[in-house]
Amino acid sequence: MDERESLAAIYEWLPDAGDDAAVVGDLIFTVDMLHQQTDFPEGTTRYTAGWRAVGASLSDVAAMGAEATAAVAAYAAPEFDGDELHAFVRGARDVCELVDGRYVGGDLDTHDEFTVASAVVGRTEAPVYRSTAAVGDAVCVTGTLGRTGAAIRAFERGAHDRGNDLFRFEPRVAAGRALAPHASAMMDSSDGLARSLHQLAEASDCGFAVAWDRVPLDDAVFEEATTDADERECGLYTGEDFELVFTVPRDRLEAARTASPVPVTVVGEVTEEAVTIDGEPVPDRGYTHGD
Amino acid sequence: MDERESLAAIYEWLPDAGDDAAVVGDLIFTVDMLHQQTDFPEGTTRYTAGWRAVGASLSDVAAMGAEATAAVAAYAAPEFDGDELHAFVRGARDVCELVDGRYVGGDLDTHDEFTVASAVVGRTEAPVYRSTAAVGDAVCVTGTLGRTGAAIRAFERGAHDRGNDLFRFEPRVAAGRALAPHASAMMDSSDGLARSLHQLAEASDCGFAVAWDRVPLDDAVFEEATTDADERECGLYTGEDFELVFTVPRDRLEAARTASPVPVTVVGEVTEEAVTIDGEPVPDRGYTHGD
Repeated sequence: MDERESLAAIYEWLPDAGDDAAVVGDLIFTVDMLHQQTDFPEGTTRYTAGWRAVGASLSDVAAMGAEATAAVAAYAAPEFDGDELHAFVRGARDVCELVDGRYVGGDLDTHDEFTVASAVVGRTEAPVYRSTAAVGDAVCVTGTLGRTGAAIRAFERGAHDRGNDLFRFEPRVAAGRALAPHASAMMDSSDGLARSLHQLAEASDCGFAVAWDRVPLDDAVFEEATTDADERECGLYTGEDFELVFTVPRDRLEAARTASPVPVTVVGEVTEEAVTIDGEPVPDRGYTHGD
Repeated sequence: MDERESLAAIYEWLPDAGDDAAVVGDLIFTVDMLHQQTDFPEGTTRYTAGWRAVGASLSDVAAMGAEATAAVAAYAAPEFDGDELHAFVRGARDVCELVDGRYVGGDLDTHDEFTVASAVVGRTEAPVYRSTAAVGDAVCVTGTLGRTGAAIRAFERGAHDRGNDLFRFEPRVAAGRALAPHASAMMDSSDGLARSLHQLAEASDCGFAVAWDRVPLDDAVFEEATTDADERECGLYTGEDFELVFTVPRDRLEAARTASPVPVTVVGEVTEEAVTIDGEPVPDRGYTHGD
């Protein structure tokens, strides 16, 4: 059973699962786990790790259109270095403050590999799901894509400061809340644009037609990627940019753009079936960490 | 820096941390991480692991006197076996149902070592903290202590069914809510009675005088422990029994007993200083997993 089949099984056993975060009354609730080997390239500071781990969960709450109320994290490491731990806590706290959330602590654990689990609770009366996109809607993304792909390339060439800068993203909590009244469906791009589109397509029983030249690549992609194919890898497949991918009825598009505190780019439209870019089928794959 | 020093530092950086769970308005929020090597002896089923991981977080919420609203868990394993995953989900769901909470999903992750992170969100208008015990109060525990110590011994001798049975505890959510209006301070016994008393003493700036013959050892302790010292190890130090340890003013004791759906045993009283059992100082130590 691979991760995808397992997730499909879980959605069957747990009808509440299957979106970016669970909805329980007016609460939005999510947990994520990140590991040294797969999520924190060599050179990632503990400040960045704290920011990114908690940011990933904040992004899930943003993708439901909710406010981020509070975050906790469990920090597991082979040993506890006071400076590293403090840096982690500062990173976690700073990313929470950026989105008007509160970092309220967590747990410590001894573990061979540096591992972080983060959980965020948020609130909204009107969550936006993945399953409600309609044919003809515009499909949009916030901000730019490919930062994480560029960051990984920066880490690989030893440009650690650059990698850390690119790795610290702003979770789109404010944008998610502003877009929620307009969006017909929404999720975050944590698995990359390609997989996000496939997941939205499956949840909403629709397709997507996207134009590659509309995908808003981050400037860093052009600086770090070496070929056109590499740029495409960063923009479509690497993922973990934690932007919002959402659909919006055409007549709400202007209102959505106006409401959003970050740039919104239309990258294509919702179709009856199949996920295509420039007419070609898009493989349903993401970045395979560390492989 | 050891785990205890690190926790002390974190409490300084994060004033919201330092209790069993964080309090954010009327929400109670906690996260825990458990690992194969340290928390799940050989023979632990995935059903028990799901139950126990989520149960540990439910216990934190119980210790604040809150209701348990919802739980999520991140499941990380080297590979995903459908039956194991399903068993885990059933365990997580069953322990939630037992305490009127909802298990609403989580995250999957590939990891060398089986690792679970669980988070629970609860609600209460009147949380009970560790820091408010008063000299002269009775110190009490719910249920019985030593089940986990007995379980570990059962696993060690290959009695896996017995170990699993003992490992699946009932989180004291109902008792926590019933005791909250009466208790002056409360926490769970996840680090063992000895460390719990030290932590309550530190938070409340008090001491405890406990009588060993009053400590309600579980029947399983007498079956599994081999010597008097071993019984004491199970009852005082092993921990992870997830019972409530709480203080209560003498004139509220009868009301607390009557309100509690599980037996309440007075094991001693709150003193000015020092944690003693039968007049002897109690070392501030717990069970060192896997060492």
